[in-house]
Amino acid sequence: MIKLNSILKIRQKLVNTPLIKQYSSKTVPLTRERYSYLKRNPSYKALEDHDITHFKGILGENGMLSNLKDSSELDLYNTDWYGVYKGSSNCILFPNSTQQVSDILKYCNDKKLAVVPQGGNTGLVGGSVPVFDEVILSTTKLNKVRSFDSVSGVIVADAGCILEQLNQYLEPEGYMMPLDLGAKGTCQIGGNLATNAGGLRLLRYGSLHGTTLGLEVVLPDGTILDNLSTLRKDNTGYDLKQLFIGSEGTLGIITAASILTPKTPKSVNVALLAVNSFEDVQKIYKLAKNELLEILSAIEFMDSSSFTTTLSYLNQSKPLSESHPFYVLIETQGSNFDHDQEKLAISLEKLLDSGLAKDGLIAQDEAQSQKIWNIRESIQMATQHLGKCYSYDVSIPLPHFYEAVELIKNILSKSGYYKELDPNNSAIQLVCGYGHLGDCNLHLNIVSKETSDQITSLLEPFIFEVVQKFNGSISAEHGLGFHKAKFIQYSKSDTMIELMKMLKLQFDPNQILNPYKYLPM
Amino acid sequence: MIKLNSILKIRQKLVNTPLIKQYSSKTVPLTRERYSYLKRNPSYKALEDHDITHFKGILGENGMLSNLKDSSELDLYNTDWYGVYKGSSNCILFPNSTQQVSDILKYCNDKKLAVVPQGGNTGLVGGSVPVFDEVILSTTKLNKVRSFDSVSGVIVADAGCILEQLNQYLEPEGYMMPLDLGAKGTCQIGGNLATNAGGLRLLRYGSLHGTTLGLEVVLPDGTILDNLSTLRKDNTGYDLKQLFIGSEGTLGIITAASILTPKTPKSVNVALLAVNSFEDVQKIYKLAKNELLEILSAIEFMDSSSFTTTLSYLNQSKPLSESHPFYVLIETQGSNFDHDQEKLAISLEKLLDSGLAKDGLIAQDEAQSQKIWNIRESIQMATQHLGKCYSYDVSIPLPHFYEAVELIKNILSKSGYYKELDPNNSAIQLVCGYGHLGDCNLHLNIVSKETSDQITSLLEPFIFEVVQKFNGSISAEHGLGFHKAKFIQYSKSDTMIELMKMLKLQFDPNQILNPYKYLPM
Repeated sequence: MIKLNSILKIRQKLVNTPLIKQYSSKTVPLTRERYSYLKRNPSYKALEDHDITHFKGILGENGMLSNLKDSSELDLYNTDWYGVYKGSSNCILFPNSTQQVSDILKYCNDKKLAVVPQGGNTGLVGGSVPVFDEVILSTTKLNKVRSFDSVSGVIVADAGCILEQLNQYLEPEGYMMPLDLGAKGTCQIGGNLATNAGGLRLLRYGSLHGTTLGLEVVLPDGTILDNLSTLRKDNTGYDLKQLFIGSEGTLGIITAASILTPKTPKSVNVALLAVNSFEDVQKIYKLAKNELLEILSAIEFMDSSSFTTTLSYLNQSKPLSESHPFYVLIETQGSNFDHDQEKLAISLEKLLDSGLAKDGLIAQDEAQSQKIWNIRESIQMATQHLGKCYSYDVSIPLPHFYEAVELIKNILSKSGYYKELDPNNSAIQLVCGYGHLGDCNLHLNIVSKETSDQITSLLEPFIFEVVQKFNGSISAEHGLGFHKAKFIQYSKSDTMIELMKMLKLQFDPNQILNPYKYLPM
Repeated sequence: MIKLNSILKIRQKLVNTPLIKQYSSKTVPLTRERYSYLKRNPSYKALEDHDITHFKGILGENGMLSNLKDSSELDLYNTDWYGVYKGSSNCILFPNSTQQVSDILKYCNDKKLAVVPQGGNTGLVGGSVPVFDEVILSTTKLNKVRSFDSVSGVIVADAGCILEQLNQYLEPEGYMMPLDLGAKGTCQIGGNLATNAGGLRLLRYGSLHGTTLGLEVVLPDGTILDNLSTLRKDNTGYDLKQLFIGSEGTLGIITAASILTPKTPKSVNVALLAVNSFEDVQKIYKLAKNELLEILSAIEFMDSSSFTTTLSYLNQSKPLSESHPFYVLIETQGSNFDHDQEKLAISLEKLLDSGLAKDGLIAQDEAQSQKIWNIRESIQMATQHLGKCYSYDVSIPLPHFYEAVELIKNILSKSGYYKELDPNNSAIQLVCGYGHLGDCNLHLNIVSKETSDQITSLLEPFIFEVVQKFNGSISAEHGLGFHKAKFIQYSKSDTMIELMKMLKLQFDPNQILNPYKYLPM
């Protein structure tokens, strides 16, 4: 039987191992060479020796990396997680105080040196690495918890604190961070905020726009904006902190945050359901919300292709008797194990009796829970393992959620690149959809044998056109970064984009922060 | 026994009666005369006949009020809820479409006519009425629900929809609005958003910054900003809507909103506790969070003065045997009555056994629940009934929450105006504190026999200095409006205020929207 927060602990183990980059940074082509249309903005000054001397004056010898004979150490910071984007910065700065961040930005702004803020560098859209020779400002050494109040549950932490370490800090107090995502062993809370990270339990604990109570931010001119309120209610003026949440380091650098944390649940339960149609998947979601109400903590979706590919990758037997078109994972978190089990069992009975679920199980022990979550969380790895994987992270309103996947399958079939029934004789081996059903967040993976410009041009901008057609978002939780900056018009109107540009220029008139990304300036 | 959402329904009845203004608008002095230092900004054009003709062209004869022989109808819109602030506008506009709002603002911006946006006009800081002769733009006729999706629970509604009517709309669908406040029978969702209204259940359902998914806003120059997304996850650019939430109509006029609504609970339980010290009140809060976790929906605080004054006003007998210094109301909302009752009973037993609660009860029927809530919700009326009531709405971190009340009592005692033990021979009859404990939101009422400038000058800015000392907020949920604009520096740094001014000028360079309020421009 699964009592207390044992499943949580197992899941922590699962994701706690720092992810190892799968590529050699040396072999990743430079972004500026791959995208030959890119031009370095000549208004940015090139880094000179006396700039490096100046930074050494602020940070000391050990506070930076620069002018190295072997560039492999620099490569680590220049290259993104997936080995897709690579810059050529010769200067990585590691400030250990807000004042140092301020001194650096003031200097860079005066000299027009472009700067890329970098947290754990686990982003998936090329937002945290340079495009050309921008200086990298790493928040890694801003890594202290400033305070925690065990009555209100409010934590105040430096931007460089690693998400998982914050969870470890909170665990003995009976609290946990309100967000949970695969990269938690490496990603930093500052980066989570700058990218408005979502993850697995946004359904239950809400977005960072709701749980963040205050931010400390350094503006491009070095001004320190002290808005580290720990209050849940504060109606005194514009809620400026909200602008920085999700701004991907283009308006200022977050140096600390005050966050409302929820109590750790005492009981966690997991169920897996097999479903015949996406219409029934929606009905199950509605019923689960109604029956499980306050204890529902995650409702995840996998199509048959995601599910079977991952079982095969994990060399795991089928948890349910037959194959089905769709699978739904339901997780509950509550304060009383018996109450939660009872609620979940009644719901499952209703779902099976009504025929909405064709088959289903409730995990009876920790190992079984772990196995179910492991399928859901290994899909990305399993598809990447198959071949060249094109991954998309989009939001689609539920009525059209899976229709989007079918439209992609359809266009790829028509092109001749995809033979669903004969994948061995097909350039594209797999098209699959999965994701956070409760947040309408679809992850869509297309796997081909080889990287191909033809396939890329079939997928983009077609996928974004589909998203636009259904009033979705071209980026649900991964952000715009370098990859999607040029596609923002598929999700935002010209008026919105113009207003965003106006704000960018107002906050960062020299455009020194994270250039060539986020907005088409 | 209290099953289903019967208590919710009772509470709806309680608050559903439209509040009746307690004063005659005719006798309220004009704000510009009461505050003689105020000067009308000469850059604003005075309204002329041809402007009125122009507005009639947009709205028709029935779409506005102007040039009336009897000004009492205009007075209704010129005077605020409490009868404290009164403007002298001669023109009230009632657009019934976003395009009409756009046409009006474009004209006003071109002509430099100042405009006050007005929703239900239930604000408490003079934010929704003119100071001089500003045109009033009422959102009352923007009153349609545009869509509701019963799977996701997302409602899209015009700004003028009344909060309670939205609840009535959602009820048959099994959903409810995520906020609840006393004025819900009159206040409009647009006004709720513009003032970032908090209320009774923010503890459970979070703030509007988290539950609002999209906004449609008309900017001062008439530009319509279409950001009515219905997606929970959308990371495509700056989250512009957040700027308008809580901006009190100074950046743009909200014309519609997309809001995520929670499921209506199936079971509601209420408990009342008597407590000896504020230290124990804090411990009770911590224990309640830990034990009740996912079902805790409100935790409210009353001091002895609030409690006994209200019992006497309601002519109600003591619900607990003796008098105690503090009282705590706990409410749970969940999906299973038996489970919730069991959790609450176990918690109450622990609280009584540990001595943290000196006495306590769980409401055993609807009438008893209603009685307990009625005490908490009648405090404001009971204190107003006693005499001239000075009401303050502030946030104070919990360790100092009640210390703030004691500091006020202390300074008033020292001044000789307040004799706590001999109120009949005291200019000030009552000082009491109550509020939303779970949100650190303190309501502080001071009741005197007569209005007195000396008492006002004892209270202000002293109360704001106390708030500042404890890193609180001078406005928790009521906003800045006219009253608190000049005190914002007690809660925000000069840097923050400067940035806010910069944003105001960027969005509204002619400063036509809601002037003389919010920020010291």
